[in-house]
Amino acid sequence: MVREQTALQKKFYDVIFGTSRGLGRNFDIALILLILTSVTIVMLDSIPGYHERYGKLFLQVEWGFTAIFTLEYAVRLWCSPNRKRYALSAFGIVDLLAILPTYLAIIVPGANSLLVIRLIRILRIFRVLRLLQFLSEANVLARALRNSRRKIFVFFSLMLVLMTVFGCLMYVIEGPVNGFGTIPESIYWAIVTITTVGYGDVVPHTALGRSIAAFGMLIGYAIIAVPTGIITAELATEIGKEKSRFNCRNCERSGHDVDARYCKYCGAQLPERETNQAA
Amino acid sequence: MVREQTALQKKFYDVIFGTSRGLGRNFDIALILLILTSVTIVMLDSIPGYHERYGKLFLQVEWGFTAIFTLEYAVRLWCSPNRKRYALSAFGIVDLLAILPTYLAIIVPGANSLLVIRLIRILRIFRVLRLLQFLSEANVLARALRNSRRKIFVFFSLMLVLMTVFGCLMYVIEGPVNGFGTIPESIYWAIVTITTVGYGDVVPHTALGRSIAAFGMLIGYAIIAVPTGIITAELATEIGKEKSRFNCRNCERSGHDVDARYCKYCGAQLPERETNQAA
Amino acid sequence: MVREQTALQKKFYDVIFGTSRGLGRNFDIALILLILTSVTIVMLDSIPGYHERYGKLFLQVEWGFTAIFTLEYAVRLWCSPNRKRYALSAFGIVDLLAILPTYLAIIVPGANSLLVIRLIRILRIFRVLRLLQFLSEANVLARALRNSRRKIFVFFSLMLVLMTVFGCLMYVIEGPVNGFGTIPESIYWAIVTITTVGYGDVVPHTALGRSIAAFGMLIGYAIIAVPTGIITAELATEIGKEKSRFNCRNCERSGHDVDARYCKYCGAQLPERETNQAA
Amino acid sequence: MVREQTALQKKFYDVIFGTSRGLGRNFDIALILLILTSVTIVMLDSIPGYHERYGKLFLQVEWGFTAIFTLEYAVRLWCSPNRKRYALSAFGIVDLLAILPTYLAIIVPGANSLLVIRLIRILRIFRVLRLLQFLSEANVLARALRNSRRKIFVFFSLMLVLMTVFGCLMYVIEGPVNGFGTIPESIYWAIVTITTVGYGDVVPHTALGRSIAAFGMLIGYAIIAVPTGIITAELATEIGKEKSRFNCRNCERSGHDVDARYCKYCGAQLPERETNQAA
Repeated sequence: MVREQTALQKKFYDVIFGTSRGLGRNFDIALILLILTSVTIVMLDSIPGYHERYGKLFLQVEWGFTAIFTLEYAVRLWCSPNRKRYALSAFGIVDLLAILPTYLAIIVPGANSLLVIRLIRILRIFRVLRLLQFLSEANVLARALRNSRRKIFVFFSLMLVLMTVFGCLMYVIEGPVNGFGTIPESIYWAIVTITTVGYGDVVPHTALGRSIAAFGMLIGYAIIAVPTGIITAELATEIGKEKSRFNCRNCERSGHDVDARYCKYCGAQLPERETNQAA
Repeated sequence: MVREQTALQKKFYDVIFGTSRGLGRNFDIALILLILTSVTIVMLDSIPGYHERYGKLFLQVEWGFTAIFTLEYAVRLWCSPNRKRYALSAFGIVDLLAILPTYLAIIVPGANSLLVIRLIRILRIFRVLRLLQFLSEANVLARALRNSRRKIFVFFSLMLVLMTVFGCLMYVIEGPVNGFGTIPESIYWAIVTITTVGYGDVVPHTALGRSIAAFGMLIGYAIIAVPTGIITAELATEIGKEKSRFNCRNCERSGHDVDARYCKYCGAQLPERETNQAA
Repeated sequence: MVREQTALQKKFYDVIFGTSRGLGRNFDIALILLILTSVTIVMLDSIPGYHERYGKLFLQVEWGFTAIFTLEYAVRLWCSPNRKRYALSAFGIVDLLAILPTYLAIIVPGANSLLVIRLIRILRIFRVLRLLQFLSEANVLARALRNSRRKIFVFFSLMLVLMTVFGCLMYVIEGPVNGFGTIPESIYWAIVTITTVGYGDVVPHTALGRSIAAFGMLIGYAIIAVPTGIITAELATEIGKEKSRFNCRNCERSGHDVDARYCKYCGAQLPERETNQAA
Repeated sequence: MVREQTALQKKFYDVIFGTSRGLGRNFDIALILLILTSVTIVMLDSIPGYHERYGKLFLQVEWGFTAIFTLEYAVRLWCSPNRKRYALSAFGIVDLLAILPTYLAIIVPGANSLLVIRLIRILRIFRVLRLLQFLSEANVLARALRNSRRKIFVFFSLMLVLMTVFGCLMYVIEGPVNGFGTIPESIYWAIVTITTVGYGDVVPHTALGRSIAAFGMLIGYAIIAVPTGIITAELATEIGKEKSRFNCRNCERSGHDVDARYCKYCGAQLPERETNQAA
């Protein structure tokens, strides 16, 4: 339900959710710094040496961050015009999950390992990118990925069938004696091999197994060309469109570079591009 | 020999082989779910823990699935207008192979590991994709791969010669002492290395061997650009043509360039296109 | 010195060096089959089990092949219009090297491992490809690679400097204690890592070493985009040119697909393309 | 502060810093040979066997090189029109760092391992490339990389967040028992995996861990398509523009499309081009 916001709520909303104003921008940058510091401390706390020496300090700082993020969550909820929508949005859920583990650790010891969820909040960085005029670049990428999602889906369905078949083949050929204990394990091996990761924790030992593995590697090596081709072709199209996004007012032709100031066909001056707004 | 189908056979044929009608679509989706469940059970049965506890249940379910698939195969055969053609088609053979292992396991214990062949039936998913309008995407991919098949063949011939020469070189340089036991084993190593999989089960130990291995890696790393380039260039062409996807009114053929005004096959004038809207 | 060929020499020359005539084609195919069989036997002989059982037979067959290839080399030399040029050409040297190891093995035991050089003769396959009309595809590939050779050279110079610097850094940081025994070994590690092969025979153990290794991996992962981009862009250009290799006789415009029969701009009939000769 | 150069200083400056004159070119080539020899000796000295036998000789040669490079540094400083600018430039700092370790080794034994810094001076090779007319190729590469730097930055930010999240997930799932000792170690594992390097020094052992690892590999395998696509699309544009490489007669700027008739920067008419010949 959309409520009427009071003037104070509106102001807070602009600062916390907005990014275009000076205060909103500073708030976002401060928030990202807080998240990064908080995550760094979770990381350091996972190193036994540091945990022993600074464990207590880390715990206190962690509680401090949790207090700040809890307050932030409360304010976000309070100043939202539509509280339910925020609480159920992806960002809203992540904001909540980012504070829960500390409280949970009172009851269940060790739960604060889950604080790593806080990391996902870093994705807010991309909201800040808008401020830095990187959004139009991100948009071209996003549009190209969106256009190619169906082809990528078809490709990955085929890949998964291929990997499953390869895994099963190797399970039958190599078997538990050579480390291919179960079919899921063999499929894990097939994924490790066809993506060319190649840990080497499970490797074929029989001549036939090695031949089939070699065949799988060659397929994996060649097939990477397909998603690359798909995304490149779509990206080229998107970059081309970016060039032709507006026409010359004189000759009505498009296809101008982003940095063009004069029409390349008739020499007339081109209108100003407002790249920030356009993005 | 093409036989006359009875009305019942025609109806069954439409449901089982067709995909455009409501019933046919539901049949295909049900079939895929059955295949996936059946394959999942084969996978679970390969895990020792599950096999011990649920082995008997799995065997019964497996027989159930085999019964269903046998019935399906019989009906497919019965309602086909050309039985021989279906039985000898790729799908027909896979359909038969998918039911044989269970029966074979009565005589030869352990043969039901071969049930994994059933997995290949999942490729029917791509027939269902047509329902979901993914086929045009799959077609663009398929056409691009078909157009590039010759270049890819030339490329892979060269790759195989290269890998064989590298393998033999390393066999001579490193020899059985350093794990390069035979020439085929050394070629296996060369494939693992040049495709950048890099298991690490066989690695060079001499200075000369390492230098040649390093050279092979650099070649493998650079050469991946070639198939990628081939497929990207073809895909870009195909995607461009997809944009102009409409047929000549005279000869009904498509595949015209975006700027084409006359059919490239029969010379008839093509209908006017509104490229801006189409894009 | 170019000699006058006798009629017999000319005939032999056409069969052995030529590829367009029926006999010449059959000769080339027979030669490739001989090379492949000969190489297969060298491979099988490298497997201890086979060597023990069939070692003597393999030796006899090897001598048979060597006799045939020696005769072939003599005839090639005899019928060449310019004997010196053939003897010093790349193919001439390979043809000689392919027969020497067997003779050498009389004096130096074990020299017949060098017979693997015979493998390089398989590259003659590409001469046969011309018969199979694959040459135009190979030409497009070759032209694209030739056009991009300078960019690829600049790129690989940078790569090698980068790999050397990374290797030296890791030698200083990790040192012989952690498996980075010498600077060349560390550079070998850097190549294994940056090309994403990743054997795992040498891995960093210190925190700083791992950070730098991770940085190197990210660079290696991203930088592969550069040669791919170079070759794709050149290939796209070459494929585009292939399309515009001849003009419509009516409107003088080019850019027609390879399979076009009518001009896409004016609808006039296009001249017949003789793809075989054009290539 | 820019000083007046004497005639002698000017002459030296032209030889040492310039590349276009005969002497300057020879000086640059000699310098590169010296650097390569010096670096080779540092490498050889790192091999225990050589160090024992030739260690003393290496030390003397090292001092010789250091003397030459010190003299070179002094002359560079002396003949620069703006000494401070040279001393603080990237090349100036590298030139200084390349001679310091030998002197430092008098006080701190072992410091001459740091001589590897000298390697970075090899980047001067790229100044010589200008002589060999490779610069225009390097320029196309550099411009394409510059144009794509924002998209690449967005992409790598996302990659790093992804790798951190994957690393943390695996730390929680696998834990120190399975080799994922700390969060930074787990992130190191995630980078090794997602870049498809795959050392195999840290591998998942639990079923859930392997599933998530497999998912990470697939993402890493697919996502490589994105930077490749970005750079390919930009390179294709740059190579296209390279074909139209000529400047506007009015504003002297280049980078016009092949079909441009008017300068996109100042609107002046561009000179007629004969595109067919140019291509």
